[in-house]
Amino acid sequence: MTNKAKNGGFIFRPHFKTHQSATIGEWFREEGVEAITVSSLRMGNYFLDHGWTDQTVAFPFDPNSTRMASELAKRGKFRFTVSEGSPVERMDRGFEAEAGLMVEIDSGDQRSGFDPRFPERIDEMLERIRGCERLHFEGFLLHSGHSYQLRDGKGIEVLHEREMEILGQLRERFRSEAPLMSVGDTPTASLMEDFPEADELRPGNFIFYDLMQERIGSCGIENIAVCMACPIVSKDPERRELVLHGGAVHFSLDRLHFDDGTPYFGLPVPWTGDGWNSPYPDSWVRRLSQEHGIVRCSEELFREKEVGDTLGILPVHSCLTADAMKGYRTLGGEEFETCGG
Amino acid sequence: MTNKAKNGGFIFRPHFKTHQSATIGEWFREEGVEAITVSSLRMGNYFLDHGWTDQTVAFPFDPNSTRMASELAKRGKFRFTVSEGSPVERMDRGFEAEAGLMVEIDSGDQRSGFDPRFPERIDEMLERIRGCERLHFEGFLLHSGHSYQLRDGKGIEVLHEREMEILGQLRERFRSEAPLMSVGDTPTASLMEDFPEADELRPGNFIFYDLMQERIGSCGIENIAVCMACPIVSKDPERRELVLHGGAVHFSLDRLHFDDGTPYFGLPVPWTGDGWNSPYPDSWVRRLSQEHGIVRCSEELFREKEVGDTLGILPVHSCLTADAMKGYRTLGGEEFETCGG
Repeated sequence: MTNKAKNGGFIFRPHFKTHQSATIGEWFREEGVEAITVSSLRMGNYFLDHGWTDQTVAFPFDPNSTRMASELAKRGKFRFTVSEGSPVERMDRGFEAEAGLMVEIDSGDQRSGFDPRFPERIDEMLERIRGCERLHFEGFLLHSGHSYQLRDGKGIEVLHEREMEILGQLRERFRSEAPLMSVGDTPTASLMEDFPEADELRPGNFIFYDLMQERIGSCGIENIAVCMACPIVSKDPERRELVLHGGAVHFSLDRLHFDDGTPYFGLPVPWTGDGWNSPYPDSWVRRLSQEHGIVRCSEELFREKEVGDTLGILPVHSCLTADAMKGYRTLGGEEFETCGG
Repeated sequence: MTNKAKNGGFIFRPHFKTHQSATIGEWFREEGVEAITVSSLRMGNYFLDHGWTDQTVAFPFDPNSTRMASELAKRGKFRFTVSEGSPVERMDRGFEAEAGLMVEIDSGDQRSGFDPRFPERIDEMLERIRGCERLHFEGFLLHSGHSYQLRDGKGIEVLHEREMEILGQLRERFRSEAPLMSVGDTPTASLMEDFPEADELRPGNFIFYDLMQERIGSCGIENIAVCMACPIVSKDPERRELVLHGGAVHFSLDRLHFDDGTPYFGLPVPWTGDGWNSPYPDSWVRRLSQEHGIVRCSEELFREKEVGDTLGILPVHSCLTADAMKGYRTLGGEEFETCGG
């Protein structure tokens, strides 16, 4: 991803909400990364404490947090995100330091951001920002999260073209403002090569990938770089199921579905000496309750494991799993924590 | 619930995994509660530190945690749960103090526990426990979690009758062992009055209830005692939606469905001076991503709220929401934390 950004001449501003870890942040620094994206002020403060002085908080600004945001802006170069309805004047009055504003545009995900079909509303927001004293307009921020609903590369291509089209229209209309154009979902950043209208890439999930990204086509199963080590606590011979200590409070509850509609919450993998292999065939996490995970097993897997053994589970959504677990152990045995959300 | 247990002559051993809080624990103590249920050794240790010396850990024992369990058993009266495949001999060798074992029976939830259709397997486990030195058999533990799939009181009644039937059979077969019979899901504990074959009740969720319990019929919407206060960070006039800071990392991802199949992740309520009222009509949390919650609004709700205001959301599943949030603020303004899982 670093090479793709470098070769394309983009600012690479990876999203650190996936891993939330200062240690993993250092791995990025070794690759030359200097600018990052975070999803909360608390996370921004944590990474600022670890030397990351150039950050974009890619979540619509909560005006109740103006004071904390202002404190961050005193200590580093911060950009905050504003969306439809953001009271920028009230924010501006509370700031004691300069900070940039990214105006969020909804590229089709229908989550947050200005609808680009109504550019006059964007005009109005920019006009309001021009009236601010400490806050200034920096650019447009898009996140094509609807790419997560797709299951093939062709769909991603169509969505990517639409995003570039929106960027082109924005650049034309707001040329005099010289906006920075920032985009950032892992599927398009993984699958597309050219981002003709973008200046900055902000993917995050790619640091680990997960089963959802594999289903989307962003990665191969062999690229998934996190695995949950779950103790086996019970076995049911009738249903050929293993019960794990590994439930909704550990994985969260994101799910995928097999072609026949059966939901699954993770896939078990065999440990090797130095990592893990491809998932066991015909085996899946069928259900999660608060602390329990229930694994429907192939005959081979069921025979192989006893209560007290550990089973590796590839997560459906690595961001939520890492947020819930709040720490890692590397294959080399090093342990470290996240910032805790 | 305390009265129901008292009037029926049951041991009342509420499950503390829902609230995970020493402060809320004190409210139970004021009601005369002395024995509790927890879902992990870490939680057990936390409540032991707060003076709860009679605990059942209602989760299949992980033999890798024998040492920690033994340390707890040195400091209090602990019962641990064993299920199909539990290596009780290995556990026993690691214990340096006496502890009780509850043998888990699957009353139909297909999660964990012995299948009562094969009582010879239960015989075998009891025989193995008789060979232990420090660990001794105390009784049978059932959790009818499949009650969570039901949507009417009649279904709960059928399920409750089946559970009592299983208990009756166990009591007959294992009369000489004088087993303690422990049952414990919130729906049956809320809706049923008689538990003819049970000795102990272990409901947990009833301390807060939630939208799922309301759908099951365990409570009315006015009995739900937790509400998330979410800042509004964006408004979309086209879709008539509010964007909240309140996502999957705050609520987890349990969902319910309206009769037409539309999923929802929470319901918004109006604040009153001293609490909240029934949910706004025609309004629901349509979607959660990592940090975002998207609320589809009635015209009234959309008109009423601006970015920076706070919206109250009743959670679908209070246990997972409390686990994710790790703290509370009472309506009186008192703040306190959970044990953190």
